[in-house]
Amino acid sequence: MTFDEEYRIKLQEVEDIVDRYLPPEEGYQKTILSAMNYSVRAGGKRLRPMLMLETYRLFDGRSKAIEPFMAAMEYIHTGSLVHDDLPCMDNDEYRRGKKTTWSVYGEDMGTLAGDALFFYAFETAGKAFDMNVNAANAGKAMTLLAVKSGIYGMAGGQTVDVEMTGKALRKDQLRFIYELKTGALIEASMMIGAVLADASREDIITVEQIAKRIGLAFQIQDDLLDITSTTEELGKPVHSDERNVKTTYVSLFGQEQAGIRAKLLFEEAIELLDSLTGENRFLKDLLVFLITRKK
Amino acid sequence: MTFDEEYRIKLQEVEDIVDRYLPPEEGYQKTILSAMNYSVRAGGKRLRPMLMLETYRLFDGRSKAIEPFMAAMEYIHTGSLVHDDLPCMDNDEYRRGKKTTWSVYGEDMGTLAGDALFFYAFETAGKAFDMNVNAANAGKAMTLLAVKSGIYGMAGGQTVDVEMTGKALRKDQLRFIYELKTGALIEASMMIGAVLADASREDIITVEQIAKRIGLAFQIQDDLLDITSTTEELGKPVHSDERNVKTTYVSLFGQEQAGIRAKLLFEEAIELLDSLTGENRFLKDLLVFLITRKK
Repeated sequence: MTFDEEYRIKLQEVEDIVDRYLPPEEGYQKTILSAMNYSVRAGGKRLRPMLMLETYRLFDGRSKAIEPFMAAMEYIHTGSLVHDDLPCMDNDEYRRGKKTTWSVYGEDMGTLAGDALFFYAFETAGKAFDMNVNAANAGKAMTLLAVKSGIYGMAGGQTVDVEMTGKALRKDQLRFIYELKTGALIEASMMIGAVLADASREDIITVEQIAKRIGLAFQIQDDLLDITSTTEELGKPVHSDERNVKTTYVSLFGQEQAGIRAKLLFEEAIELLDSLTGENRFLKDLLVFLITRKK
Repeated sequence: MTFDEEYRIKLQEVEDIVDRYLPPEEGYQKTILSAMNYSVRAGGKRLRPMLMLETYRLFDGRSKAIEPFMAAMEYIHTGSLVHDDLPCMDNDEYRRGKKTTWSVYGEDMGTLAGDALFFYAFETAGKAFDMNVNAANAGKAMTLLAVKSGIYGMAGGQTVDVEMTGKALRKDQLRFIYELKTGALIEASMMIGAVLADASREDIITVEQIAKRIGLAFQIQDDLLDITSTTEELGKPVHSDERNVKTTYVSLFGQEQAGIRAKLLFEEAIELLDSLTGENRFLKDLLVFLITRKK
């Protein structure tokens, strides 16, 4: 089986789980339920829950208790995109060729749908406690989900990004934004997989280090694709960073140096992955794919 | 000691806890941290964490592990007010005589500060897992926090309220909004107190029933005060519901019937409270105060 075929099968597995935990669209609050489901079903790479599941398998996790956490992770990621698109933030009417949540349901419902997805994520993750899981591990996983989504994670990065829009960024500021805005949920995904599989403290720290490098390399790759790809290949307009005078790894370090840094981070990640006892060939292939992707 | 004196001491105790868990305002994301702290420190009755603590004591809870949950509850309540005030929602520039978060920090930061408070609430509650708590109980408490804040709780009620603005409400719709928008966090507060004190399943259900009645009676009392109080006494303009053609218990049932309903709900709540084995005189006084309050 080629990687593409395997990836498609794995993606379907993840899609099914993310979909299965969505709420039924009924009752007085039908509109918000439909706005939530619309947002989640608008698609995406489902990268975070996939990384969570494969890290869980790397440590021999076998329980269904990982599933509510996979869904929860995708709901938080989705909720953050819903709020990113709002008129008071990026003011985007379309994402991946589909109308954004606020542009379908209105600005007030867009705000509430994002909020509702955040709460629903923790509500969903909480179902794990009824699934024969080690409660201390589930508690640790739920706390990780909160920390890496919040001010010391995604939301913190997002805030600095919004604050610095239109201003030139220093290297340390750019790195901070990348590590938190993109990196934090990737860290949380892989770490939660490890925690729920009862990995050792040491291994969980190694997983965090792997995820940190992958998250940063992934974001640098995004910067590079904006320069090197074509609009056709990428499925969205290229050279947008240059047009928007956005500080990126490419604008700060140049294309060659940015490429070298991404490669280095990636190699370190693979080395760390190889240092672990467990084995998951697909996870390794997935990481290679993320860093060599053309879109 | 009079109730007022005792209340003031208890309030200080709760204030200290809510304040102690706030994040330090430092680092790249300083602005959002300052917006979060500004929102929480803008004040309020701190009713929910107080109810949580006193219910905890009713069941003989004695650990510090209740504290992060008290703080978490107040952060969620605050975050919801921050989003309520946004231009795309109620568009309020002032709350309790102070500038609202978005009107100080901008609309984008207001949106993000609300989000950050939600995540920080779960991050804070998660600290309980490191405080020698029964992890299964802490998991149940964290899940309750999510469920009662989300679409089957506060956010669900909020959505229907926003959707129905300017439209006449049926009795069942009004009750749904009151039970979810106001009631759900009061239920969560009291239930979390009971859960963390390791109360029996049966007692937790009784506590939910008490809280449901208190929440609804509290909201009806709000409707009544808008009619019967003076602007001076209430500290905000009276007759605002009538001016805004808002459906309330008073507009639907008349002042007398609304008063009778509130009294009945309150008496049922006290009866249920008396049916429990534990004893907490201050909690009972607090409930009386909530229903007989003049502001």
